[in-house]
Amino acid sequence: MSDSKKNAEEKALSGLKKKATPLLPQQYVDGILKGDRNLLSQAITLIESTNAAHRIIAEEIINLALPHSGKSIRIGITGVPGVGKSSLIETFGTYLTSIDKKVAVLAIDPTSPLSKGSILGDKTRMENLSVNPNAFIRPSAAADSLGGVARKTREAMLLCEAAGFDIIIIETVGVGQSETAVHRMTDFFMLLMLAGAGDQLQGIKRGIMELCDALFITKADGDNLKNVTRAKADYISALHFYPPKPSGWIPKVDACSSLDGSGMDKIWDVVNQHHEWLTNRGMLEQIRLEQDLEWMQETLRDKVLDSFYADAQYRENLIRLEKQIREKQITPFKAAEELFELGRN
Amino acid sequence: MSDSKKNAEEKALSGLKKKATPLLPQQYVDGILKGDRNLLSQAITLIESTNAAHRIIAEEIINLALPHSGKSIRIGITGVPGVGKSSLIETFGTYLTSIDKKVAVLAIDPTSPLSKGSILGDKTRMENLSVNPNAFIRPSAAADSLGGVARKTREAMLLCEAAGFDIIIIETVGVGQSETAVHRMTDFFMLLMLAGAGDQLQGIKRGIMELCDALFITKADGDNLKNVTRAKADYISALHFYPPKPSGWIPKVDACSSLDGSGMDKIWDVVNQHHEWLTNRGMLEQIRLEQDLEWMQETLRDKVLDSFYADAQYRENLIRLEKQIREKQITPFKAAEELFELGRN
Repeated sequence: MSDSKKNAEEKALSGLKKKATPLLPQQYVDGILKGDRNLLSQAITLIESTNAAHRIIAEEIINLALPHSGKSIRIGITGVPGVGKSSLIETFGTYLTSIDKKVAVLAIDPTSPLSKGSILGDKTRMENLSVNPNAFIRPSAAADSLGGVARKTREAMLLCEAAGFDIIIIETVGVGQSETAVHRMTDFFMLLMLAGAGDQLQGIKRGIMELCDALFITKADGDNLKNVTRAKADYISALHFYPPKPSGWIPKVDACSSLDGSGMDKIWDVVNQHHEWLTNRGMLEQIRLEQDLEWMQETLRDKVLDSFYADAQYRENLIRLEKQIREKQITPFKAAEELFELGRN
Repeated sequence: MSDSKKNAEEKALSGLKKKATPLLPQQYVDGILKGDRNLLSQAITLIESTNAAHRIIAEEIINLALPHSGKSIRIGITGVPGVGKSSLIETFGTYLTSIDKKVAVLAIDPTSPLSKGSILGDKTRMENLSVNPNAFIRPSAAADSLGGVARKTREAMLLCEAAGFDIIIIETVGVGQSETAVHRMTDFFMLLMLAGAGDQLQGIKRGIMELCDALFITKADGDNLKNVTRAKADYISALHFYPPKPSGWIPKVDACSSLDGSGMDKIWDVVNQHHEWLTNRGMLEQIRLEQDLEWMQETLRDKVLDSFYADAQYRENLIRLEKQIREKQITPFKAAEELFELGRN
């Protein structure tokens, strides 16, 4: 490590709130590699922090942890609100721990824009899994942009891998662009659907259907079983209309129930089949490589913008130009142009 | 106009595809102000273009059109897939033209990530409204990022206003971050909900509920009417739990049917009540000002990133560093750092 870097880090550490334990990046990583959940949590908090000092430590932690990451199976799970994502993850996660797997659950969840409260905090979720010693649940990072949330989730995932979790489940809330972000950081993408919910095939966007490696129909229990059988046939035929995957993998359709726990073994089976399929064809490496390139672009984008906004003059110019917009002396468009021109010099 | 700017524009015009009519920005704006729909369409195409030459013309068109914009009522409409957004807009839009209003319909619709096909193109939509001489329907712009789509939609909206449309309806597809983007560019935000669709209050994200100025229950016809009455009561009590709006406006809950056309007058009534509420309190100006500041930030962000990526060296460095990532000689994180450092000098 260069001296200037060392100084920057020491400065960063002294900038940490008294409350936080001021460890060196290597100490965090040593702890994470030993499976210390407290240090893992603290390191993820540093990743999520907007404090520049925290960011410097976080970057170093990631760099040190990176060589120890990449060994998990990364699963993305999505579905419309109400489909039962949390229950499924609770049940599936518990199943995985029962076959001696260690499971980390992360979420991509753009924050409520007004209250700034995470949607995941709305109700108590995953009550059993959250106290399971072989599971680690981390609600979503808040950020100004989806890109920001995605980058932070990706980095948290790498730390969980370094901490020895075998399966990382990334949940995405809602049906929007976050699905694409999750697809870009996972190996296996699972779509949850309801049976008999009316507009079955219109209820989800084409683009999301295209992404999925498996489609599982939830709530396959009791009176709903007849609907499920019909829905399965519908979805199988619907998936035929989508372009084939680059790997040649054909998405699987099946059903499960978080109520009676049925189908959890099937999900795990499909995940493994898919993993083998990719590995045998050398595609897993390809997918991970593409994810790395994507990650580089995300990081670069953040750096470019952060550095522009961090300029001392920028704040001053911004205040002046916002005032001019308020007084209708300049259009927002021209103001942006001026801010940009002033900032680039 | 400065000489250098003039030259840039002449160059831009000569760069336009032969197929397009190479008009001067002022000619587009003159046409738009006269209500020429062809020129309006062409100008929006220029806004959506990624071609740098087109972009220069588009910027000038927007600057010239801006003083003529801002006079419409801007309505955002959202709801989960299957709630009947398109049918509602078709019916409500037709109602508005029947009371002598001119209506423009735009959409924010992140493109399908794999097929690159717009989701709006999936089915023929708004068949009647699309041939109505007092309506203008423009499917969503494609872009790499939600920010890009939002900026383009906002600019298209301003041109529609300059073209004399009284009401701009911006539809957002899906339940995700695009709602926030639409909320940020409209005066009135309407959430559509289904009655009796099971998890009524969980089916939509808290954050979206918070944003709405009115909640309308769709498909209020036939056998569904009993469910609708119950749902109305539920939603009214649910909305009580949300923080009050800065304007003091209390979101209205009502029902409508695109099948029998009922409730369209109620929607229009609520829109007007809300508009008056804001105007009387000087809040409309405040909202528009905030939207202008937001727009400035979006434009600035795009400019900063575009200029970084446009650098000739960047492409070269990118190719080299991507190769190093492929060969596992560098981590994505370090590569981003290097690309950034090389690009800023």
